[in-house]
Amino acid sequence: MPKVAIVGYGRTKFSTDDIKIESVLLQATKNLFDSTSNLSQKDIGAVLVSTNSNSKYLSPILSEMAGIQPKISHSVESLCNSGTNAIVAAYSYIVSGLAELVLISGAERYDSPGQILEWDNLRGKFKHPIFWASIFSKSYKRKYSLTDEDLALVSVKNHKQSINNPNAISQKAVSIEDVLNSKKLTEDLRLLDCSRPCTGGASILLASENICNKFTPNPIWITGIGQKTTSASFTKNSTFDNMESTKYAAQSAFQMSQQKPENVDVMEIHDAFSVCEPMALDSMGFTAPGKGIELVKETYFSEDFKINPRGGLIGSGHPLGATGISQTIEITQQLQSQADKRQVDHAKVGLVHNMSAAATSSTVLVLEK
Amino acid sequence: MPKVAIVGYGRTKFSTDDIKIESVLLQATKNLFDSTSNLSQKDIGAVLVSTNSNSKYLSPILSEMAGIQPKISHSVESLCNSGTNAIVAAYSYIVSGLAELVLISGAERYDSPGQILEWDNLRGKFKHPIFWASIFSKSYKRKYSLTDEDLALVSVKNHKQSINNPNAISQKAVSIEDVLNSKKLTEDLRLLDCSRPCTGGASILLASENICNKFTPNPIWITGIGQKTTSASFTKNSTFDNMESTKYAAQSAFQMSQQKPENVDVMEIHDAFSVCEPMALDSMGFTAPGKGIELVKETYFSEDFKINPRGGLIGSGHPLGATGISQTIEITQQLQSQADKRQVDHAKVGLVHNMSAAATSSTVLVLEK
Repeated sequence: MPKVAIVGYGRTKFSTDDIKIESVLLQATKNLFDSTSNLSQKDIGAVLVSTNSNSKYLSPILSEMAGIQPKISHSVESLCNSGTNAIVAAYSYIVSGLAELVLISGAERYDSPGQILEWDNLRGKFKHPIFWASIFSKSYKRKYSLTDEDLALVSVKNHKQSINNPNAISQKAVSIEDVLNSKKLTEDLRLLDCSRPCTGGASILLASENICNKFTPNPIWITGIGQKTTSASFTKNSTFDNMESTKYAAQSAFQMSQQKPENVDVMEIHDAFSVCEPMALDSMGFTAPGKGIELVKETYFSEDFKINPRGGLIGSGHPLGATGISQTIEITQQLQSQADKRQVDHAKVGLVHNMSAAATSSTVLVLEK
Repeated sequence: MPKVAIVGYGRTKFSTDDIKIESVLLQATKNLFDSTSNLSQKDIGAVLVSTNSNSKYLSPILSEMAGIQPKISHSVESLCNSGTNAIVAAYSYIVSGLAELVLISGAERYDSPGQILEWDNLRGKFKHPIFWASIFSKSYKRKYSLTDEDLALVSVKNHKQSINNPNAISQKAVSIEDVLNSKKLTEDLRLLDCSRPCTGGASILLASENICNKFTPNPIWITGIGQKTTSASFTKNSTFDNMESTKYAAQSAFQMSQQKPENVDVMEIHDAFSVCEPMALDSMGFTAPGKGIELVKETYFSEDFKINPRGGLIGSGHPLGATGISQTIEITQQLQSQADKRQVDHAKVGLVHNMSAAATSSTVLVLEK
């Protein structure tokens, strides 16, 4: 079976602009075409769109606008990890021989309907994600004797790192005090603990090893894939202080790639809220339970960007359907040594963690140069 | 690479009932579990949902309701051929080794947002599919000197055949006169020329050849897959009297399966409107251009059910996301000799044709026993 590589990418600036979803998809795709050598529309066998938009038939619409007549075309939706689900679908189309070259474009608008968790009746009126994040924060702080100040460092670090990401919605540093003094949304969450909904797009190109050298001298290989859905309702989680689906997905991805946490040089973690970053680090085995925040501190004070070099969701913004693709592009750039001021030294193995709805569903990808 | 088989299925009655989309998905899936031997939730590696519903995260929701914790879970949308797109995605997950057993559930409500083609600005106010179908009808009739009466036979045949399908929305025969005297919607289309939006669900189970015998003694193999998207806007079609994407998809599916039209014993054709059935027969090479209606007549008068034995979309109803799956289940039952009064004699090779939006996108599957 052929190996699968990432061979091109394009992004838009993440913003709060009122732009049509079709235009966001097209702009990210145009940027991909502009930066990829020898790419011809006729070579593209599948076009997948990742979004929570209510608009239908977006893959044929993007294809028509971009001059592509693919064999396979459809949208993929799984809330906040739609992007990595679309990447895994594309990987499968290539490995199974149905396509050799797949374009994936993720986009969202700031007013995406994916931001409210309508289905979970047990939530009563608490349908916004901040309510699960509050319970996670309270539970994690209590179990491991952490403070709001401890968790605030995630936001401080990721805002700082996003300054070096020209596509990030945030371009300014914040202090621990700024986070603690920002608007209190719930007992355990302040505004600066949260990633922001925004308008943004990210397109990525996957190719079979048989043709990947046509497009780049530096293909980045997808060597590990792990996915797990434990439930839809976060109230079904067996615990609120680690991420069961993330743990399982990471185990699968490490097993497939024959890698392990200590080999990972750079990673994108789904920090939808500050508590998510240390919890995910624990759950994937990078740290012992409750110790994730120590790794966050260590990297921050040593000015090591290895965790969320583009600024994570908190610094970059969180356009749902584009997030997993944007994370994957960041790791690709890191492994290609093309991450400019964000570059992590000697990055050979990278990891992407992308999840939905209180980690009821997770994807973990291992990428290698 | 492993072969992929259909090993189970479940459906709901197609109706105009006001049922929640989640309940439709669950009912079709419960029917699948009830009729499939040795099926355990823990064996299911992926759950895909096919729908045009605006509801998000439906695959984890269905999984939770059905007691499944899959690795892969997401929705697939491509308007009216969402169902076969989800089947092809599932096929890929199995061939690529990411899953061995995949549940696909398609559902739609009678008030689906997929029924209006919002994106095509060139349509002005004519955003309902009947307008492209009217242009197709006028063009096809003019080019091949056909009459409204000729095309009405498609509706007569498919209404007649749906009487033997207990899940069909229509359970009564209509005459040529009934079709011609039904409400005139446009110059070229009457109410009985059209498939009806409805509420309905269909679930299907795909397995790797390594495990398929656990679930059924009669696995049905997916041997040919062809897909093509030519555009999103039907006004980009180069012709209105044949289906370019269908032609290409059929060629690919026949090539992959090493079959040809004359070997096909039974087929499901996407007769969203009466003109679609003969046009699709022409485009796939079953008949010379303009001769599709002769094959329709021949099968009708000889009481051969080989074209749309379950009554097609016109007789069965058209719950968009469920249609492609329901078509595939029909061919599966035919090849398993389990189609009751609809059974076609000696059916060994079957074909599914499922398309979207004026055949701007098509899927063709070849199935074999």
